[in-house]
Amino acid sequence: MAAEIQAYFSKRDALIQEDRSLRRENKLLHSLTENESVADKIVRRIRAEEEASIWSVEHDEFPHLFPGMEFLTSKSIIDKTRIFKIVSKMPKGALLHAHLDATVDKTYLLELALKEPLLHVRTPGVVTTTNLTATQPEFRAFKKGQSSQGISVTDTEYQANGWIPLHQAREFFAYGGAEGFDKWVLGAVSINPAEAYGTHNTVTKIWQKFLSTFRATAGLFLYRPIFRQYIYRFLLESIDDGISYMEPRINFFHKYMFDAEGEQTVPHREWLLDFEQAIREARKTLKEQDREEEFIGAKIIYTTVRIISPEDIEWYLEDCIGLKKEFPDLIAGFDIVGDENVARPLTDYIKPLLKFKQRVKDLGLELPLILHAGETLSDGGKADNNLYDALLLGTKRIGHGFSIVKHPKLMQLCRENGIALEVCPISNEILRLSSSMPMHPLPVVLNQGVPVTLNSDDPSVFGAMGLSYDFFQVLVSSETTGLITLGQMARDSIEFSTLEKTEKRRALSLWEKRWYKFVDNLVSSGSGSVIAAANEE
Amino acid sequence: MAAEIQAYFSKRDALIQEDRSLRRENKLLHSLTENESVADKIVRRIRAEEEASIWSVEHDEFPHLFPGMEFLTSKSIIDKTRIFKIVSKMPKGALLHAHLDATVDKTYLLELALKEPLLHVRTPGVVTTTNLTATQPEFRAFKKGQSSQGISVTDTEYQANGWIPLHQAREFFAYGGAEGFDKWVLGAVSINPAEAYGTHNTVTKIWQKFLSTFRATAGLFLYRPIFRQYIYRFLLESIDDGISYMEPRINFFHKYMFDAEGEQTVPHREWLLDFEQAIREARKTLKEQDREEEFIGAKIIYTTVRIISPEDIEWYLEDCIGLKKEFPDLIAGFDIVGDENVARPLTDYIKPLLKFKQRVKDLGLELPLILHAGETLSDGGKADNNLYDALLLGTKRIGHGFSIVKHPKLMQLCRENGIALEVCPISNEILRLSSSMPMHPLPVVLNQGVPVTLNSDDPSVFGAMGLSYDFFQVLVSSETTGLITLGQMARDSIEFSTLEKTEKRRALSLWEKRWYKFVDNLVSSGSGSVIAAANEE
Repeated sequence: MAAEIQAYFSKRDALIQEDRSLRRENKLLHSLTENESVADKIVRRIRAEEEASIWSVEHDEFPHLFPGMEFLTSKSIIDKTRIFKIVSKMPKGALLHAHLDATVDKTYLLELALKEPLLHVRTPGVVTTTNLTATQPEFRAFKKGQSSQGISVTDTEYQANGWIPLHQAREFFAYGGAEGFDKWVLGAVSINPAEAYGTHNTVTKIWQKFLSTFRATAGLFLYRPIFRQYIYRFLLESIDDGISYMEPRINFFHKYMFDAEGEQTVPHREWLLDFEQAIREARKTLKEQDREEEFIGAKIIYTTVRIISPEDIEWYLEDCIGLKKEFPDLIAGFDIVGDENVARPLTDYIKPLLKFKQRVKDLGLELPLILHAGETLSDGGKADNNLYDALLLGTKRIGHGFSIVKHPKLMQLCRENGIALEVCPISNEILRLSSSMPMHPLPVVLNQGVPVTLNSDDPSVFGAMGLSYDFFQVLVSSETTGLITLGQMARDSIEFSTLEKTEKRRALSLWEKRWYKFVDNLVSSGSGSVIAAANEE
Repeated sequence: MAAEIQAYFSKRDALIQEDRSLRRENKLLHSLTENESVADKIVRRIRAEEEASIWSVEHDEFPHLFPGMEFLTSKSIIDKTRIFKIVSKMPKGALLHAHLDATVDKTYLLELALKEPLLHVRTPGVVTTTNLTATQPEFRAFKKGQSSQGISVTDTEYQANGWIPLHQAREFFAYGGAEGFDKWVLGAVSINPAEAYGTHNTVTKIWQKFLSTFRATAGLFLYRPIFRQYIYRFLLESIDDGISYMEPRINFFHKYMFDAEGEQTVPHREWLLDFEQAIREARKTLKEQDREEEFIGAKIIYTTVRIISPEDIEWYLEDCIGLKKEFPDLIAGFDIVGDENVARPLTDYIKPLLKFKQRVKDLGLELPLILHAGETLSDGGKADNNLYDALLLGTKRIGHGFSIVKHPKLMQLCRENGIALEVCPISNEILRLSSSMPMHPLPVVLNQGVPVTLNSDDPSVFGAMGLSYDFFQVLVSSETTGLITLGQMARDSIEFSTLEKTEKRRALSLWEKRWYKFVDNLVSSGSGSVIAAANEE
């Protein structure tokens, strides 16, 4: 019997190995450095300790704790964990999926706004105690002072949609003055737990709140005196979190930005000049701090919105081509965004997109489609079916690809053709595609050998700045996933970026240098007992 | 361009077909009868209509409606839909995963209990208004009248765990008398929406409530005067819902049942005699109603519990073999049950299970393992890893297999070796593995070509009697899934049952006869406009 049991467990080991053989980090597992092995064990051990000491404790304030639970409820707990501190220090590689207008800390954006004397605010009606949280502000600059009836948006005299100078509206805000105003604005541009997990707890409803945050920030983000500082801040905040290269999506739906005078006159090419300038400034700052190697660079994924007609998209496609010609190093690709469940499916745009591909080819440009697809719970509906089109249209990566787990052939195509998913764990959870990380389908795609990169999507709306929170949620919600898995995903984020060959080689080499340093630090700073125990295993 | 677009859409059709080529109903799609095609279209049309007219409406009472939403919240709405009425009439094939002690309408069980004069009730302390919903009753029969201090469990004089005659405790129940007592007991043996989606909204917590319902009903179910009537009712209720064959699991953990006198003396073989007798009675009733062809038969999956030691399980394995020898037509297989996340993993039982397999082989018995595995959100933890063992141990089917979507090799094994999953959609949702049906991984396994059967698991605890509710939830939460998919799953439930070859052929042929009748009725009773529209498509 003993021999039979031994044979059983040998077969079992072989089956597990075979089952996991498609995982991309699998091929590394036999060639890890000693410190990598130890670091992986240390992290697994601390994770298990914290599962018991932190995530299994009953709290009055937090009724249902578990690892990978709802982010908005657990953020304050995550911040205190050792796993989060470790993950924060990890070099993350590239950020490949983030909407630029939702990337910078919202309090900083408000700070910038308050420095701009021409900014005004309006609401669709008088703000009252009962409609306060449901009412969204809008902002814009005016050269000539405007002032609507009423002293603030809370004034009974206030006329719907009348523009009031920002400082005045804030000072005379009836519910808590300046402080109350700030709280209201910050609530309007982010999602809170009561909304995500209560009042708006469906994909349809939370998307309404989600989209409203973009409408609220649009007038600030697309105001040129703010725009460039915003980008600079995005770059620096990302770099501080261990991200060395970024491909943010910028929404070019509006053909002009507001200039310093409050006139809507700034064309797209000047947005790119600002982006370029922000990169230069970031490099300068880093050089002064002797941190040049932490930053490879940044490119823009040009996006427009899935509400426009197939005819109107042609303008944007040509605009994108024009910008690519002028700024070949700044434009990474083209995408169309919006709630796939309600917006136009990709099939509406086949003709203009095929034409675009031909144009790009004829012009000899490196300008891929990098399409959102499958950000949905649907099975066989239009949002799910976008995956077929994204792949047939030759997308370089897939934005989200949440529902691709339902499609064996499409996962095979991604695996065989090197098409990475831009997975956004916290975004998916807050936008109610998964109720918590253990319900997220990420392990399915990892075990199918689909290349995966982790992304923040809209960190300012979710209060999940940087990539550390997303890495954290992934790490604590799977026992198969370890530090080496996170390392593979970081490496793949560079591998599947649009960086040109030489740049990519340099980026990978710099990332590896930081990775080994991170691993060494983790091993040498680990408490003696943890290391000893890890080595024993 | 037109030719290019045409070529694109041809390629698209081919890709979708290839992606879905593993689906088991796929091979049927080209050989459907005309009425099957029309019926499938009718159902898709009604589903789309009801998605708009019922599931997209805002209600004060139901804040977040959508198809496939939380069952306990939406049951009263489901009951009113046309889709539910259609699904109710569908022949379902076999029920392959249900725990017998949680299958019969709880009000009927209480009715049976109230007819038994020897039954007593107790609680772990005085029942008060504040602990009422959290306090579970226990029942058992005593030949000699017992009466604890206090007139009922709500009496301040009541002594913890003292047995009080059921009728007395009920009559003098301080919170609403008999009516209040019944409400309390029915609440104790089922899960309500406030528990599933509020107070107990994690897998760990809802399992505590879930297990407590079994402790509360145990003393009624395992009381022989009730036992046989319970089984008869289970058979008839199932047959009324279109189920023609059942393989319920019976928990044989207790070695003796209570006899009519309240003594714990009834050995397992007598449980089987009762089961056999209930089958005979059901056949008799059906014959009287000229419905004999609606019932093929029933067998028992012998189960014990995953808390017992590897040594103690040997007794149960031998007991199961003994019963199989005596009742070859009644015992379908062997299983071990419990919350996989906390109970012993299958690896603890490898030795006795391998020994069992050898014994079964030596004896020439048809007695497969039919193991629960992967009923978990874990990725790479012990509950998830049970899947490796279930398959290596040669399980005939997999109970749940919820987490198998993470395992490409294991899905391949199921597909190639014909190992069906016993999927329990509503159970998984209420036990918080999926927050709602659109989050359920069922579409993943269907598209991987894994054979799937739909099951009710514990319908009395969930208030989801029969299989119609599970079929409903599956049908409304996927656009790929249609009536033909449900038909395939019904057919597969017979195909992957333990029915012997000839019986199986007869069962399939009887099912097909009913299926075509069902389809014909659906087509001929459909309103003219629906059919016309369906035909136009």
